[in-house]
Amino acid sequence: MLSASSEDKDKALTQMAVSLDKEREAILKANRKDLESAKAKKLPAAFIERLTLSDKRIEEMACGLLRVARLKDPVGEVIRDWSVESGLRIRKVRVPIGVIAIIYESRPNVTSDCAGLSFKSGNCVILRGGSDALNSNFAIYRALKKATDKCGFPEGIINIITSANRLAVDELLKLNAYIDLVIPRGGEELITKVAKVSKIPVIKHYKGICHVYVDECADLNMATEICFNAKLQRPGVCNAMECMLVHKDVAARFLPLMLKKFKDAVVEIRGCKTTQRIVKGIKRATEKDYHTEYLDLILSVKVVDDLDEAIRHINEYGSHHSDAIVTDNKENAQRFLKGVDSACVYVNASTRFTDGGQFGMGAEIGISTDKLHARGPMGLEELTTYKYMVFGDGQIRK
Amino acid sequence: MLSASSEDKDKALTQMAVSLDKEREAILKANRKDLESAKAKKLPAAFIERLTLSDKRIEEMACGLLRVARLKDPVGEVIRDWSVESGLRIRKVRVPIGVIAIIYESRPNVTSDCAGLSFKSGNCVILRGGSDALNSNFAIYRALKKATDKCGFPEGIINIITSANRLAVDELLKLNAYIDLVIPRGGEELITKVAKVSKIPVIKHYKGICHVYVDECADLNMATEICFNAKLQRPGVCNAMECMLVHKDVAARFLPLMLKKFKDAVVEIRGCKTTQRIVKGIKRATEKDYHTEYLDLILSVKVVDDLDEAIRHINEYGSHHSDAIVTDNKENAQRFLKGVDSACVYVNASTRFTDGGQFGMGAEIGISTDKLHARGPMGLEELTTYKYMVFGDGQIRK
Repeated sequence: MLSASSEDKDKALTQMAVSLDKEREAILKANRKDLESAKAKKLPAAFIERLTLSDKRIEEMACGLLRVARLKDPVGEVIRDWSVESGLRIRKVRVPIGVIAIIYESRPNVTSDCAGLSFKSGNCVILRGGSDALNSNFAIYRALKKATDKCGFPEGIINIITSANRLAVDELLKLNAYIDLVIPRGGEELITKVAKVSKIPVIKHYKGICHVYVDECADLNMATEICFNAKLQRPGVCNAMECMLVHKDVAARFLPLMLKKFKDAVVEIRGCKTTQRIVKGIKRATEKDYHTEYLDLILSVKVVDDLDEAIRHINEYGSHHSDAIVTDNKENAQRFLKGVDSACVYVNASTRFTDGGQFGMGAEIGISTDKLHARGPMGLEELTTYKYMVFGDGQIRK
Repeated sequence: MLSASSEDKDKALTQMAVSLDKEREAILKANRKDLESAKAKKLPAAFIERLTLSDKRIEEMACGLLRVARLKDPVGEVIRDWSVESGLRIRKVRVPIGVIAIIYESRPNVTSDCAGLSFKSGNCVILRGGSDALNSNFAIYRALKKATDKCGFPEGIINIITSANRLAVDELLKLNAYIDLVIPRGGEELITKVAKVSKIPVIKHYKGICHVYVDECADLNMATEICFNAKLQRPGVCNAMECMLVHKDVAARFLPLMLKKFKDAVVEIRGCKTTQRIVKGIKRATEKDYHTEYLDLILSVKVVDDLDEAIRHINEYGSHHSDAIVTDNKENAQRFLKGVDSACVYVNASTRFTDGGQFGMGAEIGISTDKLHARGPMGLEELTTYKYMVFGDGQIRK
């Protein structure tokens, strides 16, 4: 894979899309098998919905692969190019990481998405989806592998673990001599477990406890729009707002209308003492609330004395994912941007924009809440590392 | 530290240098105490040499801090700046990582070097040097801390662990909720242990099993110079050559003279069967030899059938540190550069150039043999991460 050309990779990606379409019947059949077991186990409706494949979903997977084929190949990009005193010319060049293991839950489309992004970035991938989607995942894998085989790529570029035994994952996570990176995608429990067990470096795609801070200098109409959007446009995702912070000097003007709007949208509010004083009939927020990613129609609200308290609260209770300030004051905006230690910090925009697509990356493997290697939305570039290529004409060290 | 200005940091770094000079007597006194214990313990002469401080070494440490003060501040650098369809402007900005723990052996100058680089890059640092240098390290730490105190920086920016108990390190390595990164610097044993125990991400500065491959199209005079330099300019360091690979078609011309040169320089050669056939009286290299970082006047030599075998050998036996090809053939050079999976790959130059100073980084915290976050020489930039600062005027997600 270190030597594969962009053209050959893109041809294979196109072939993978074609192959998914060809194997549609086999994939749907395998999926029906998984669905039957899931229904027999009485797994929740939302779970079954995510597990279900259809003609449309397979088409979406194929389109996703075609889209990835059209993206710029990050491999080979010259990040920097300079010469040094000794006469050596040094090029810092983007290269694949190597072998990446991706561990995810029972959403079969992730199999195709992750295989496509890993392949495009020149990596070998080991896929381990949820045990309730094993048949679907294997059928998708088979379709993809037929394509890479046909295009002359060697064995072992796309791999899948078919054992339903959870110990297989524990064994996998010990193989730090062979696997360069593990990316867990899914709920908090999965990610915590992988991070705890793994001997391989992990990039966590952890929870999002996201804040919007309404500054004393905020345009309150804009603040209302942004907070409403951040909470309600899609409450079940990691970049939705879980806690709203409001400067004490605007709280009395801002909160009554804002909280009425939330109440009308059936959002349960849990507020601090001051919030309770300003708007009656609100439940008190506990310490635990401020630490909670609700992913639901619940919002904690806190009135703060100043910008510094807002920054401190976010750094202490947040998950370093996405946090926003609404303000017309440039200095306050700068202090917030610098002081909040999160992957994405916003001025006057909804936290919901933290997304590879919205950032113009074309595709996304997830959103890293870690600080090393990749932070925030992870696209193709974040699935690469670099090496230094050094060109001499006989230089020796003196 | 997230909000500290470059000017304030540079002033404090200058002050640290001044403070080291002022506290010279106290530092030397503490060092004498460490030296007495070390001598009483009959520690080896090379160990005691590394532990010993002198006026000159303290001056070098101070000069190092002044040099770091003059380097460009990586924090705040705009890595990328673009606008997206929604009208949002996104800036990818370099920021400090946070809290970095550095674990090293009994070389007191590392205390000052690492504190300086961490401080300049806006990180808080926790230093843990070898237990035989505790008094020296603490005296250096005190001098540095006086300077940061004087310049108005808060407590806890530079920290040192003064317990000689090795369990302190084990406890430290569990604190993944508070520490963002661990950098072990030193011998293989230390690094393996840290990597095994740590719950915190580790960037390893591991061994260097470096190769020079003499291609069939090599200028053999150049090859002789480069191999001699790579092995002998400083044999005890990680970027010295440990194994020389030679294409079979030039082996009979190249090896006799080259190995005579090495023999004259008292280098012990351990060769493959073909090497033994070409030059008599050579010890046979074992599998273990090819896996060994000698750091000594020993070299393994292998004759290979072609470039592909050379690449395979390096990827299998090497440590992904620094490897070179000597060739006049551009295509072979390109195949080597692409195919060898190492941090630094050289064409027609000695592996000894893998070094932050030689790369023009101004300073170096070490050489990473890992692939994630930082690879190869690690300077100030590699002690940073990034965040996305996103500027809107009321954007909400549709």
